[in-house]
Amino acid sequence: MTANPMNEESFVRKLAALFPQSADVTVGPGDDCAVLDLGTPDLLLAAVDQVISDVHYTRGTSPAAIAGKLLKRNVSDIAAMGGVPTHALLSLAVNPMDEGWLLEFHRGMAAIAAQYGISVIGGDMAKLFAPGEALSLTILGKVERNKLCLRANAKAGDLLYATGEFGNSFRSGHHLQFTPRLKEARFLAGEFTCAMQDVSDGLLKDAARMAEASGLALELEPDRIPLRAGASRESALTEGEDYELLFAVPENLRAELERRWDFPDTPLNFLGRFVPGTPGAVCGLPFDQSKTGYDHFR
Amino acid sequence: MTANPMNEESFVRKLAALFPQSADVTVGPGDDCAVLDLGTPDLLLAAVDQVISDVHYTRGTSPAAIAGKLLKRNVSDIAAMGGVPTHALLSLAVNPMDEGWLLEFHRGMAAIAAQYGISVIGGDMAKLFAPGEALSLTILGKVERNKLCLRANAKAGDLLYATGEFGNSFRSGHHLQFTPRLKEARFLAGEFTCAMQDVSDGLLKDAARMAEASGLALELEPDRIPLRAGASRESALTEGEDYELLFAVPENLRAELERRWDFPDTPLNFLGRFVPGTPGAVCGLPFDQSKTGYDHFR
Repeated sequence: MTANPMNEESFVRKLAALFPQSADVTVGPGDDCAVLDLGTPDLLLAAVDQVISDVHYTRGTSPAAIAGKLLKRNVSDIAAMGGVPTHALLSLAVNPMDEGWLLEFHRGMAAIAAQYGISVIGGDMAKLFAPGEALSLTILGKVERNKLCLRANAKAGDLLYATGEFGNSFRSGHHLQFTPRLKEARFLAGEFTCAMQDVSDGLLKDAARMAEASGLALELEPDRIPLRAGASRESALTEGEDYELLFAVPENLRAELERRWDFPDTPLNFLGRFVPGTPGAVCGLPFDQSKTGYDHFR
Repeated sequence: MTANPMNEESFVRKLAALFPQSADVTVGPGDDCAVLDLGTPDLLLAAVDQVISDVHYTRGTSPAAIAGKLLKRNVSDIAAMGGVPTHALLSLAVNPMDEGWLLEFHRGMAAIAAQYGISVIGGDMAKLFAPGEALSLTILGKVERNKLCLRANAKAGDLLYATGEFGNSFRSGHHLQFTPRLKEARFLAGEFTCAMQDVSDGLLKDAARMAEASGLALELEPDRIPLRAGASRESALTEGEDYELLFAVPENLRAELERRWDFPDTPLNFLGRFVPGTPGAVCGLPFDQSKTGYDHFR
């Protein structure tokens, strides 16, 4: 970073503003996926995400587990839009270009892609300049127009719900072993919510993003946040890599949602409420919001 | 590499074979782009390609020039299919995460994307574990069904043509300054050829790939290959990074092609002929084919 570090959010917004969008781009940079309207019944979803050695996994992690994390975190982005994943492209920068490692990685990728019905349609491999890996995956997906979920769609009075537990993802191994909430998202999308996102950078940061995109504040009830084994309340709020869903539910659908929730292995929790106020402001925190949240620019 | 290095081609083929393709995948891994049939009038094209410091450019290259190379080499892949680029996603692993560098990179990307009418719809930035960059771009495009060009479409008797000059790309700076042959490809596609690819890994290797994909041999006339300033015949055949088009033209269209070629700054050259024979075999070489061609596994 430079001597005077900018906030990641504002810098990323500044970069995104450099890029005008064509008429077929329904949603550009800034949500979990971009959304394209190509005139088909479904909308096209596209996102890219990467995993990097020493940053997103420790050296020695099995190539198949790395492949799984790379694909699943992209599937989680598709889920958060209410969609289903369809195709993927791989971009691998590795050193050394060890065939055993690469074969194990691709076998792992093929196995997990098959689980989700994803076709891996292309890729590129090149040698990195230093020992380690920088691995990127672009995912394509589709979503029915009436199921599309956006961060910006929360309404004042909507309840904030989340799937699963939070915190201690890295040390517990959750960041490798998680199951993206695709089934849950498909159940919710268009039926109980049209405002959803996944939690990768930390519950607090991602919930605040959703509130800000919707022009609302958020009354959070941190005591309700379910903690993963070994997690503190603060780690649950800030550490990230949870790959759970956050979504806004109109008050009048609350009872029906809780009655019809049929995912016994996936906790469903009410965490707060979107309210009028400074966009992105979060009330109810046990500490100063400005000090929290995973920042990729650290 | 392992002690017993496999040939890149066969290893990549082995990896690609791990991935079954869904019914909407018209062309999977192995051509310049994947081709998807989403039921729209045009087919969807998708490809990913990367540039890495010390590998694809020397340190100190301007961020805007790096951005240009990254986008243009992907545009070249779209051109080789006969299509036009539409959207792009960026995946950047950089160290340090210097805002000045990133801003200059994104400004350069925005300028060149605007030239080609490409919307940059999303991206991811993360910190790399060691100083340098691994930069990846996924490009989407479209092509009319009757203009789609595939490596596998050359027919026995077709003439091999190429745009531009070959060799000495890296030292001359061509690898940064080139103009992808989009206009030329659009003129050719469906009219004069349905078999095309771009030259990134070396004229000989890429021409052999085209012959192999088409189940044909190639009679090359190396003396006809136009040399970039400073290039030897061998470097023109093997160095790569030319980003020119190779394409197959039926004999009976030869005269019309040469008459109607209206790109005064882009040389058009006949280089040989596709013939029955061992698929991928090249005749007419001044040296042993097995020793040549850029191999990413070096």
